[in-house]
Amino acid sequence: MKIGIVGGTGDIGEGMALRLSPKYDVIVGSREEIKAVATCDTCRETLEVQGMQCSLVGTSNQHAVDEADVVVLAIPFKHVTPTLQTLTGFEEKIVVSPVNPIERTAYFYYAPPPEGSAAMMIKGMLPESATVCAAFNNIAANKWKQLDEELDYSVAVCCDDDGAKRTVMDIVNSVSGLRAYDAGPLASASVVESVTPLLLNIARFNKLKDVGVKFV
Amino acid sequence: MKIGIVGGTGDIGEGMALRLSPKYDVIVGSREEIKAVATCDTCRETLEVQGMQCSLVGTSNQHAVDEADVVVLAIPFKHVTPTLQTLTGFEEKIVVSPVNPIERTAYFYYAPPPEGSAAMMIKGMLPESATVCAAFNNIAANKWKQLDEELDYSVAVCCDDDGAKRTVMDIVNSVSGLRAYDAGPLASASVVESVTPLLLNIARFNKLKDVGVKFV
Repeated sequence: MKIGIVGGTGDIGEGMALRLSPKYDVIVGSREEIKAVATCDTCRETLEVQGMQCSLVGTSNQHAVDEADVVVLAIPFKHVTPTLQTLTGFEEKIVVSPVNPIERTAYFYYAPPPEGSAAMMIKGMLPESATVCAAFNNIAANKWKQLDEELDYSVAVCCDDDGAKRTVMDIVNSVSGLRAYDAGPLASASVVESVTPLLLNIARFNKLKDVGVKFV
Repeated sequence: MKIGIVGGTGDIGEGMALRLSPKYDVIVGSREEIKAVATCDTCRETLEVQGMQCSLVGTSNQHAVDEADVVVLAIPFKHVTPTLQTLTGFEEKIVVSPVNPIERTAYFYYAPPPEGSAAMMIKGMLPESATVCAAFNNIAANKWKQLDEELDYSVAVCCDDDGAKRTVMDIVNSVSGLRAYDAGPLASASVVESVTPLLLNIARFNKLKDVGVKFV
């Protein structure tokens, strides 16, 4: 299976490429193809040092969409609309949203769009035959890249299609330490996304770093 | 310190009485005083079997408010407004809200009042000198009463007053297994309350029971 990462040169994108490319064919997309190629070179070296093989290709965001079965939108919420407006070809794809609409004053808070969540907004911007899944929303960006640390977290997955949900849960469970949980339909993604500002507040007010979540 | 529990004969209220009365003076309130007395008798017997001493008094909700330094509103969201309309005397008290405004269709979702959260709504209904803290929002009611099980969970606490927040965090940490985290001001309680419908969805869609949360 081919996983395309839109925004694959950001922190989360690069970390996901590192964690997923030993098991899947990963296509790292970027607005600047040269950056994506460089990110893949870095990832390949990092993995080789660890004695791991990988399948990684750096390309444009559009090619990452075109080539992939599963597309991950590893971009900040404010970039979602402008980025999706430049991309086509999402028909029949599974689209994974780890996107969280968050604002910050003296504390972090959840600031969803009128659709109720980033995931529901994204669904509305894509063709009907695309299947959107919310997943990976609550994992700190820094943690993705620290390959020597297991990601010992729970991951809530929301999706309206059982097959696509199972595919994404399998991808989650392929990452050592992560455990996927079915969190219901896509309409319930708001309560998944809103965990992230809570974790940022927990980190901030308790002087912690990169706080994650486990369902127990 | 005296802790009054409004709605102390419900599942959460009774469980909190069991867990807190060995360490604090607990005043169990109910609309029907006779029920509160019966709940206290049951709790006392349960604790005596375990060889534990306790300080428990059953009374009316109004007396539980009047006598307490810290008042816990252990009532469902839909009962908050009618209950608070019948009670007075919250001046200078610390008021703890474990209340979550939740609705259910095919899944559970967060349905906050116009104030943004149950905690902020409660703040608006009480005198200015009362200090509202959100705490204990994400612990399953059933778990409170299972004294043989440690409550191995994280508890996010939101409050605008540092002293009251510290008091409530100390109460949280007095319960074996619970760990309190400062989750910021009361305005950030919405992202704490909205974890509960997520946990209910996780339980429901993964055939689990009484799912809780840990920040890691």
